[in-house]
Amino acid sequence: MDYRNFPQSVRIREVGPRDGFQNEPEVIATGDKIRLINQLAATGLKRIEVTSFVRPDVIPQLADANEVLDGIDRPSGVSYSVLIPNRRGLENALERRDRFDETNFFLSASETHNKKNVNRTVEESISGLEETIPLAVEAGLRCEGVISTSFGCPYEGDVPIGNVLELALRLARAGCVEVGFGDTTGMANPLQVRRFFEQVRERFAAEGLGEIELTAHFHDTRGQGLANVLSALEEGIDSFESSFGELGGCPVPAGATGNIASEDLVSMLGEMGIETGIDLPGLIEASAEAQKILGRPLGSHVLKAGPVEWHR
Amino acid sequence: MDYRNFPQSVRIREVGPRDGFQNEPEVIATGDKIRLINQLAATGLKRIEVTSFVRPDVIPQLADANEVLDGIDRPSGVSYSVLIPNRRGLENALERRDRFDETNFFLSASETHNKKNVNRTVEESISGLEETIPLAVEAGLRCEGVISTSFGCPYEGDVPIGNVLELALRLARAGCVEVGFGDTTGMANPLQVRRFFEQVRERFAAEGLGEIELTAHFHDTRGQGLANVLSALEEGIDSFESSFGELGGCPVPAGATGNIASEDLVSMLGEMGIETGIDLPGLIEASAEAQKILGRPLGSHVLKAGPVEWHR
Repeated sequence: MDYRNFPQSVRIREVGPRDGFQNEPEVIATGDKIRLINQLAATGLKRIEVTSFVRPDVIPQLADANEVLDGIDRPSGVSYSVLIPNRRGLENALERRDRFDETNFFLSASETHNKKNVNRTVEESISGLEETIPLAVEAGLRCEGVISTSFGCPYEGDVPIGNVLELALRLARAGCVEVGFGDTTGMANPLQVRRFFEQVRERFAAEGLGEIELTAHFHDTRGQGLANVLSALEEGIDSFESSFGELGGCPVPAGATGNIASEDLVSMLGEMGIETGIDLPGLIEASAEAQKILGRPLGSHVLKAGPVEWHR
Repeated sequence: MDYRNFPQSVRIREVGPRDGFQNEPEVIATGDKIRLINQLAATGLKRIEVTSFVRPDVIPQLADANEVLDGIDRPSGVSYSVLIPNRRGLENALERRDRFDETNFFLSASETHNKKNVNRTVEESISGLEETIPLAVEAGLRCEGVISTSFGCPYEGDVPIGNVLELALRLARAGCVEVGFGDTTGMANPLQVRRFFEQVRERFAAEGLGEIELTAHFHDTRGQGLANVLSALEEGIDSFESSFGELGGCPVPAGATGNIASEDLVSMLGEMGIETGIDLPGLIEASAEAQKILGRPLGSHVLKAGPVEWHR
């Protein structure tokens, strides 16, 4: 694809309220979470992952899933999603069915990472999801499946794209209308990303699944986050996940950078003339507010430097 | 250019010993500088900007230019350059003529930035360089001209590419065999970079200056540093400047990120199969040593996260 054919607009899912808040050492007050989520929704973000139905004793940071869902505004045009670890999680989530729109099911493409993360083999995870996803579809929920370590595993190294593709197809056939590919510890490089999405798109089209939305979830662990976004754009990918303030992600080793910052992504796309529908100053304000609540400087570049547009 | 036609190899100039050390609030001990420069040269870096002949009362951080040049090893195959602000600076530098190989002459493309930086109009600066550069060429020095704010000015906003091109051509005609384009405060976006280098290459070829080396100098101020590198690569640019540890640059506002980190650049290129000739672990060791000397965590991503290759 020639660079003059970049997508005209891009969809962004804000994952900070789940992915970011979950990775904070301190539990953020429910009221602060609700306020930040409402602030994010007011920026024009149309997709926000707000919480997760995980066991509260395992992840106390998200133990207030019900309260958060009950408390947030539900402006029209904004789709709220929750992360679902397993069938039990879905059953709990369905008790708040009217308070969200989408579910995010996940697993890792590498055995070691999946084992460490959810204590299951990859086959156990995907089989479980194949039973659970149809229940969510039946409940009228839009389903996304996310495959972690799609571009490499910090324990196993290279992850064969064939393994990732197989999982992606099984997720789609189970009912996911969107499949996300996570570069969980920032191992992807731009050339790999080009080849990866070229193959995924071809295979999905060949399998009659060309309508499935393909989403890229990159981390900035090695500073290549936005370079990988650029590569994905060049391959026609127009759906991304990011986190305001650069919150969350999977910092391996500790101290390393995680998710790409939503405001860095929105800034780059905006400067390139690619529409996101998101108000950049409003997004920066939300990150500044999170920074104040957390009491430490966040990693986002544009939060520190301000957008280019302020110099015009 | 199709992505399969990325350059097979890339030249990198390490600018940390000049650009980085100059921007440190504390003056680094001369012995530490010499040790770090020698350590960098041992990594396979073939171009290192080591110091500047500026007025010691203006930039005390580089007042030891003579001592640094006298003290460093001169392994064969490594080209050492010095920054020259004006004719007086060149005259001082020529007293150490046998201790370096290249000179770097600079100016800004925008009036306000040039005025604030060197207290001259752009025309005064380029006219002065047109008189000075031939003297350096006469002394057998390889000359690079660097144009700051080539992709935008924090005071004036957009900088017309026509202005940048005019300066680039005048630098080349004055004797520069290499012209560098600086994104001084990280305002460039990948689409702009594609269009920019497309136009510069076409114009240089049309003027019979197709042999002039074109170098990109990006900053990571808004997280787009490596995305801009990727765009430049796609336009056939194969010469870059960066700074080990992410030292230096022009942090506007204070606290913002400056230069792209050499190890982040080398890591991305290596993962993409593009040859740099640089030993990444050795480069990381040099940055770790600088971090120890400076006593604060440096911004480089790969310094924190380690290279992808360590997971293979």
